[in-house]
Parts: sequence; structure tokens; C-alpha cells
Amino acid sequence: MDISVVNFKEKFKKIHDQHSYKIIAQMNNYHFKLVKAQREFIWHSHPETDEVFMVMDGKLQIDLREKVLRLKKGEMVVIPKGVEHKPSCKEECEILLIEPAGTLNTGDAGGDLTVTELEWI
Amino acid sequence: MDISVVNFKEKFKKIHDQHSYKIIAQMNNYHFKLVKAQREFIWHSHPETDEVFMVMDGKLQIDLREKVLRLKKGEMVVIPKGVEHKPSCKEECEILLIEPAGTLNTGDAGGDLTVTELEWI
Repeated sequence: MDISVVNFKEKFKKIHDQHSYKIIAQMNNYHFKLVKAQREFIWHSHPETDEVFMVMDGKLQIDLREKVLRLKKGEMVVIPKGVEHKPSCKEECEILLIEPAGTLNTGDAGGDLTVTELEWI
Repeated sequence: MDISVVNFKEKFKKIHDQHSYKIIAQMNNYHFKLVKAQREFIWHSHPETDEVFMVMDGKLQIDLREKVLRLKKGEMVVIPKGVEHKPSCKEECEILLIEPAGTLNTGDAGGDLTVTELEWI
């Protein structure tokens, strides 16, 4: 059984493309995924699960229907299941996502931005 | 529904005692817990669940039966369910734990160090 320490900075160095989600760890049926993002994403929700966003570098804005969340490095938020949200980063930000394996980035919205195959790094 | 940003540094400022686990977030049935630790803990395992340790400040050593893991700020590890481990911090370290709600700190070992009631901060 491979039990090894994950260093976030080293993992982010291995990510060369924006918006390419990489799995770095699994806890039970949950994946820990890293992404470098610089875009305004689409409105969507995850009807089956809560989702954690943790900002590892930069700034992340998450629009909700009723308010706007602004996160910076060293901050996290739990988006409850079923709650519509729209993440966006004006400048490149580094995000850790925690959610059940198989959770789609576009949730119930689908569309061209949906990523179904994720690589481990 | 309260959806609010969690700032780790601000939460740690609210923790005045070592070895007092505080819940800061819940994702589905998982708790995100902070602790300031400075001790050699006991050998134990969690037969029902994997457990995540993320080092937010300082250094954390986790002894396994077959090797020793050394983590510093910006690093995490998943201890698989059933794997015996013994965390220790010589100097005070700040740890984020992620595991199912109700997971006991002492796992299958029990004993005087077991904490059963956790406060939200």
C-alpha cells in the first residue's frame, strides 16, 4: 500500500494547462483534485453532493444567486448540494477541490466544458 | 442557508488550547477539524475510514509500522482505513483533519485521550 506525502506546490508544478483537473489523493470515495483556473465558469449545481473549494494560491470568486463569495489563499468554502454557483478567476488561481469521485465539474449543467476523464498526478 | 468563507488563520486564532479539536466545516457527512498539537500521540487506527491530515503550519510526523512520514506546511497525507499510525509534533503544529463526523481521535485504541464532544468555531 502506497502511503505518501502530497506536497501541493510540487503537484501544481506538474500542471501545465489551465482547466485541467488532476487527482492527487483519494479519501474513501472522495477525490482531492487540483486545478489552475483563469476563466468565468458556468452556473451549475451538484444535486447529489456538497463540494469544497480551497484556494491554494490567488483569488477565487464564487457567485451564488443571493450573494458573491470572494476567497483568497488560505480560505475554503463548502457549496452545499443543489446550490447554484458560478466560480470565476480573473487571474490564474490554484484550487483544491474535494468531492466524491465522479462528480462532474459542470454538475447538472453539462455542456462543452464538461470533463469526464481525470488523470492522477 | 449559511454559506460562508472559512479563513484558516482566523479560525486558528480562535483556538487557545492545544489538543482541542474544533469543527470548522461540514461536507456531506465529513467534518473539517482544526487542532493545534504538540505531543506524541498514541498508536491507533480507524477501522471504518480513511483520514486526511493537512499541515497548515509547522511540522507533523506520522509513524507507520513500516515507515515514518514527515509533513510540513503545504503537505497532506491520506491514512487508509485500518492502518496503524502515531502522529506527533515536537513543536506546536496546526493541522486540518478531514474525516467522517463522529470519527474518534483515538480510533480503535480508545483511552484517556479520546475526545467525544467537538465544538464548532
